[in-house]
Amino acid sequence: MHILRVDLTAAAVRMEETPRDLLFLGGRGLTAEIIAREVSPRCHPLSEKNKVVIAPGLLTGSLAPSSGRLSVGTKSPLTGTIKESNVGGTAGQGLALCGVKAIVVEGAAPAGKNYVLVVGPGGARLDDAGAFRGMGNYEAAQKLRDAYGKAASLILVGPAGEKKYATSTVAVTDLDGNPSRHAGRGGTGAVLGAKGIKAIVIEQPSQKVREAQDKKAFAETCKTFAEALYKSKKGLRDYGTAYLVDVVNGVKGLPVNNFSRGFSPLAASINGERLAGFCRERGGKTGKPCSKTCVIQCSNVYCDSDGRYVTSGLEYETIVLIGSNCGIFDLDAIAELDFLCDDLGIDTMETGAAIAVAMEAGLVSFGDTRGAKRLVEEIGEGTLLGKVLGQGALVTGKVFGVARVPAVKGQAISAYDPRVFKGTGVTYATSPMGADHTAGNCLPGRGGINISQAEGQARVSMELQILSGICDFLGLCLFVGPLPENLDTFAALASQFTGAALSPEDLRAVAWEMLVKEVSFNAAAGVSPVENDVPEFMREEPNPDAGLVFDIPKEELYTFWRQG
Amino acid sequence: MHILRVDLTAAAVRMEETPRDLLFLGGRGLTAEIIAREVSPRCHPLSEKNKVVIAPGLLTGSLAPSSGRLSVGTKSPLTGTIKESNVGGTAGQGLALCGVKAIVVEGAAPAGKNYVLVVGPGGARLDDAGAFRGMGNYEAAQKLRDAYGKAASLILVGPAGEKKYATSTVAVTDLDGNPSRHAGRGGTGAVLGAKGIKAIVIEQPSQKVREAQDKKAFAETCKTFAEALYKSKKGLRDYGTAYLVDVVNGVKGLPVNNFSRGFSPLAASINGERLAGFCRERGGKTGKPCSKTCVIQCSNVYCDSDGRYVTSGLEYETIVLIGSNCGIFDLDAIAELDFLCDDLGIDTMETGAAIAVAMEAGLVSFGDTRGAKRLVEEIGEGTLLGKVLGQGALVTGKVFGVARVPAVKGQAISAYDPRVFKGTGVTYATSPMGADHTAGNCLPGRGGINISQAEGQARVSMELQILSGICDFLGLCLFVGPLPENLDTFAALASQFTGAALSPEDLRAVAWEMLVKEVSFNAAAGVSPVENDVPEFMREEPNPDAGLVFDIPKEELYTFWRQG
Repeated sequence: MHILRVDLTAAAVRMEETPRDLLFLGGRGLTAEIIAREVSPRCHPLSEKNKVVIAPGLLTGSLAPSSGRLSVGTKSPLTGTIKESNVGGTAGQGLALCGVKAIVVEGAAPAGKNYVLVVGPGGARLDDAGAFRGMGNYEAAQKLRDAYGKAASLILVGPAGEKKYATSTVAVTDLDGNPSRHAGRGGTGAVLGAKGIKAIVIEQPSQKVREAQDKKAFAETCKTFAEALYKSKKGLRDYGTAYLVDVVNGVKGLPVNNFSRGFSPLAASINGERLAGFCRERGGKTGKPCSKTCVIQCSNVYCDSDGRYVTSGLEYETIVLIGSNCGIFDLDAIAELDFLCDDLGIDTMETGAAIAVAMEAGLVSFGDTRGAKRLVEEIGEGTLLGKVLGQGALVTGKVFGVARVPAVKGQAISAYDPRVFKGTGVTYATSPMGADHTAGNCLPGRGGINISQAEGQARVSMELQILSGICDFLGLCLFVGPLPENLDTFAALASQFTGAALSPEDLRAVAWEMLVKEVSFNAAAGVSPVENDVPEFMREEPNPDAGLVFDIPKEELYTFWRQG
Repeated sequence: MHILRVDLTAAAVRMEETPRDLLFLGGRGLTAEIIAREVSPRCHPLSEKNKVVIAPGLLTGSLAPSSGRLSVGTKSPLTGTIKESNVGGTAGQGLALCGVKAIVVEGAAPAGKNYVLVVGPGGARLDDAGAFRGMGNYEAAQKLRDAYGKAASLILVGPAGEKKYATSTVAVTDLDGNPSRHAGRGGTGAVLGAKGIKAIVIEQPSQKVREAQDKKAFAETCKTFAEALYKSKKGLRDYGTAYLVDVVNGVKGLPVNNFSRGFSPLAASINGERLAGFCRERGGKTGKPCSKTCVIQCSNVYCDSDGRYVTSGLEYETIVLIGSNCGIFDLDAIAELDFLCDDLGIDTMETGAAIAVAMEAGLVSFGDTRGAKRLVEEIGEGTLLGKVLGQGALVTGKVFGVARVPAVKGQAISAYDPRVFKGTGVTYATSPMGADHTAGNCLPGRGGINISQAEGQARVSMELQILSGICDFLGLCLFVGPLPENLDTFAALASQFTGAALSPEDLRAVAWEMLVKEVSFNAAAGVSPVENDVPEFMREEPNPDAGLVFDIPKEELYTFWRQG
């Protein structure tokens, strides 16, 4: 496989041999390594010195179950840290099957110029993107398929990325061709946009699957694992990630009204059952896979009461952060907001958090669905208010003088209140990504301790950050379970696929090295260990429903990465 | 002398004995010490946990020449660091003569409630400030004098501080009663505003002067020093600080058009000679003292061509940052902008830098004086654009996607291009205050090396930061000269005044401890040593007129405070 280097300053593409020491890396492991090697930690994220690395996971393109993840890495304009955000959909497998181990996007096109990068089994080229400029993701996806063929997978920079918003995503088309899958966090779309990339078209690959070195054993491991996953993930299949609404509301850790409450009696109107019911009744669908090898099938198609398509992949984080956390308990309104965000290419989580902060500032009221919609539209229109909100919760809080901003290292906290989910709070505080549940989500039952006790959470978070890191570099969806009991299977898959004998400890070592590399990049970028903390208000103002504050000793967080 | 503690949560004031270990501190030394002891480094600057300490210098109120400085310290909403900004005018002496060693303002009034703190020789009280709410500084100063007597000195929070802008100042009335002197940097006005202080009225003290322990020797030292200063500071007296325009333009270090040039052929239209000429011809005045003991007299009164008062204290930093750096070379326009900023209570430096960034983003053109005025008016009106600009250059850059933002630790760089003034650049990079020339300005001739050589600047900056720190805690205006040759005089003044035998080395030790305390506070607040640097563009993009980049090795800056 090759590294595709795309230099926007020179408008040139080049296929490079993969250096030997990168051969066994993939996904987040590879993006972290290349960013750490090639990007100056102190550069401005939107300057031409920054780079974007787009890398399928090590197993992506193989038959491994739910192995379709694609990592997008850069220095983030949202957090100023190194950033990786990964995404499902069809593009990861498409790239891997075209023999591309990573795309490295560097330099910057002249202002006003942007490109479609076309990648196929035969090579790559840059086409002028003038015709697609400013186009929403849904329209762009359709027009690009018209131009490049229905079989193409697409990676898209929405209008928000073109405007260099720090909330902007990199969108990927799903199996239906909708741009509903997003590498959502950290404003990776803005960096691609600043470089002048509007879209990446991945033409139909010549190979159908990346074969394992030990085909037979690999197929066997895949089959066993897939069957186990299919059996154990019925909840996700039936209800999507929205099943978490009841779980999290049940333990009073549901963000409501800018994290001022942890419980709402209205949660039932946005929960998994309600979502599944609407999907069933209105001609939508639950139990959708987002990529070919997905056996978990947590995605969905959401239709309105007239049966018309509204959005796909309506997820728990969206439902909470742009829903309950804004006082919005109307699934139809949330679905519409999700569509608007997907079409613009903005992170529903950061955007929801920013809107909630704007609500706290009194711009619109909590629960005002029309007002929330208007705010998202302003982001799209690029009004001044849209520009402010488009920079995320922290900048919004600064401009409006709001002190209660739920963010760590500049990134908004996910949909689990860290005062209740204290292990996840440790992850928010310590992850090199800023607040990010996918870096190590200490859900009930994980780690063997009560989610709300202070003691022992650092250990639980560390273990989950390593195991999640393994999934991230292998290209496995986190829903396969970043759990110790799956580690032997991960090692078997990696060994049988690559032909190298990779033990569970080897995988741990790769993930650890990746994390250390990220933490070191951040240190060189000027991130202090003292930023390893949740916002101070969460240590002082109890979540009133749970009666809990965040009380993990600061010292444990500051010294977290010295645990190793 | 007493510490006056003002608790806005309880709406209560209390006079406290000064703890013995604070007796020999004053000004910045005292604000740093109290903030470090009492403020949680991780608190939100606008939360009620933050405090503001207002402290006259150790010598303030005495007859020492130019010793009228008043320090305002807090955790800054602009930089997130500890902050001290000091100011001349009449209030420092007023407080000292009322026996107030420091005011500690803590807690926060309920929203919508604000107060006038009245301090007199007999004590202090809080009056309702409803009648003054939202009032500009000039009108407020007049109305407050109407209410509290013409002899009162005033400390004012302008409309910008009430709006909690990170650019907001704390204004102090000058000898004419105009609110033209500002503790400008770091948004100290926003913290006072967030607490609910609109103004501090200092009634006429009963004592006229703070007597020295060794009256005779002190009087002698004062006389000798005053005579020397009066003789040597003719340039400042005749032209004000604007004399620097030619000096800095001459070495091609003048910020022009958001630091894209270092020289302008138009500089003569905004230089000291032009300023002095206008003052002379139009009935204004140069050579004004800003407080009673000032012998340097660098201030001025600026009138328009009809002889009407426009502004007072029009300074070099204002003339450059809101002038040449915005492409504006019209002294009348700059004076009008200065008045608008003074009246709103916003820092002319940070505001000028923010406007230049907005100009770089294309909101208005460089050189568009009407456009610049409109932007300042928007800050006053509190429009959304005003709110953005009111947060300073960094937030403005984020909202408009501008990568060339001349700021360090969130504070805009002063009017000396660090690519030319490399020692001052070291100060910008390393000062615990963020970019701040007053922390240690390596002007030509200081430190004995060429201003633009890379080698040796760390040593020069360190020496100047210590000597400037001595002035800051003694309450001496920096224009007395933070220079080794004055150190014996400083020590004599301090010793004769306090009755303690304070050697030059003792003063150095106090300043060093103060700096270390500030640096430590910042470390605990999450400021990394890696933030000790100028923005990366200044290392890469040469100042085209000087042909220079900033090239002090990063390692020297990162390890700066380990020099000790």
